[in-house]
Amino acid sequence: MRKNNKKKINAAILIIGNEILSGRTQDLNVSFLSDWLNKKCGITVEEVRVIPDIEKKIVINILELKKNFNYVFTTGGIGPTHDDITAKSLSKAFNTKYEYHKEAYSILENYYGRSKFNDGRKKMAKMPRGSSLIYNPVSAAPGFIIKNIICLPGVPSILKSMIDNVKKYLVKGLVIFNKSISLYTIESNISKDLKKIQNKFSKKVEIGSYPFFRLGRIGVSVVLRSSNKNKLDSCLSQIKKMVKKKKIKVFK
Amino acid sequence: MRKNNKKKINAAILIIGNEILSGRTQDLNVSFLSDWLNKKCGITVEEVRVIPDIEKKIVINILELKKNFNYVFTTGGIGPTHDDITAKSLSKAFNTKYEYHKEAYSILENYYGRSKFNDGRKKMAKMPRGSSLIYNPVSAAPGFIIKNIICLPGVPSILKSMIDNVKKYLVKGLVIFNKSISLYTIESNISKDLKKIQNKFSKKVEIGSYPFFRLGRIGVSVVLRSSNKNKLDSCLSQIKKMVKKKKIKVFK
Repeated sequence: MRKNNKKKINAAILIIGNEILSGRTQDLNVSFLSDWLNKKCGITVEEVRVIPDIEKKIVINILELKKNFNYVFTTGGIGPTHDDITAKSLSKAFNTKYEYHKEAYSILENYYGRSKFNDGRKKMAKMPRGSSLIYNPVSAAPGFIIKNIICLPGVPSILKSMIDNVKKYLVKGLVIFNKSISLYTIESNISKDLKKIQNKFSKKVEIGSYPFFRLGRIGVSVVLRSSNKNKLDSCLSQIKKMVKKKKIKVFK
Repeated sequence: MRKNNKKKINAAILIIGNEILSGRTQDLNVSFLSDWLNKKCGITVEEVRVIPDIEKKIVINILELKKNFNYVFTTGGIGPTHDDITAKSLSKAFNTKYEYHKEAYSILENYYGRSKFNDGRKKMAKMPRGSSLIYNPVSAAPGFIIKNIICLPGVPSILKSMIDNVKKYLVKGLVIFNKSISLYTIESNISKDLKKIQNKFSKKVEIGSYPFFRLGRIGVSVVLRSSNKNKLDSCLSQIKKMVKKKKIKVFK
């Protein structure tokens, strides 16, 4: 993994799948991918989209996101069935041939054995010309990267098993650190003070506040994010000072 | 709720919140909203976007989605703190005044009592001129609807408590029915047959196939969706015939 510790590097996630849009399946890949990119790669996910398995939609969204973000991660649509159209749609978007990737073909042929290597399985070896493979240690069918688009499967456990193989293709960015403090209070009790502190740290530290219910009590988590550890610490200590002054109890 | 049983009505969901993008919080609103809209309103969610709490991003996305979908549901960013900027951003997008909504103001003043109705809480009564309220039976602070944009809170339990109050503003569309069958097989074993059946029903029935792991065994759920019950039944029976012919066991 190359490093570029001074530059902010961003990404978008494009979830391709009717099953997420219909509410049938709960997406789990966004939180996993965002967290992994953030912590392991210093890459910030700045947009997520969920779209149906429709070629035209995939093409439009890929072309738009590709232009606006350093990386685009797609999940879903790379299996063996008729509704798996991610690779074909990408070929269309980039106007490149949709063809068998030799190495992918031989990986899959080896895995299934020649006699069981049917058309559906062969389809998983087809991708846009010029793709590089992302190996799949669980079920063989590889993901791939073409230009700045990284195509991963939709099944969360398989995606997770492949993620370390993505690293070598990415440029590492500025790592964002975060600290949080959970308070026995409600948002409107601290909103004025938080705003003041946020203004002081302007764009250096991002302060978020999130109400929650825990063990039958309500509270607020205040989350600070910054690429600058000193600013982060100083911001947190100002919040702690405010908390003390207002006699707010801190969740341990 | 008015009805328009012949027309397909669609929606987009715009999740506004850094906490989802950073991977800190698992979104639960998409699956709930999609399922509710689908089953209760005959409205199909065709796109979801997750974006940060940045005014410019909110404005751009609202204007784009508003144009392309019958309804846009936003979640998040309507609380009392500095990072809650949904209402203000919408005023900007529509070039309308961002001002106190009289009824919202009095609901909140009543709920908190005049002495505890501080600036943070007052902020929750500010919205674009011309908004209609969506009442909140749990924590008083209302959501609102302006043009075809429905603004709801990010906290799932509060969103759920408010959802029935949204119904009166929506036009009911064509209800989409679905049936599914879960099979002890793998996708590539049935992909060819599914494609044939999908081609037969072309755009009348949408067939999706989703691999899963359950009780230590692998399987595939085949999900059929259609606005036409007869076509749905006939499609399912063709799949059952194929399953029988291939001697595939069905999950009970």
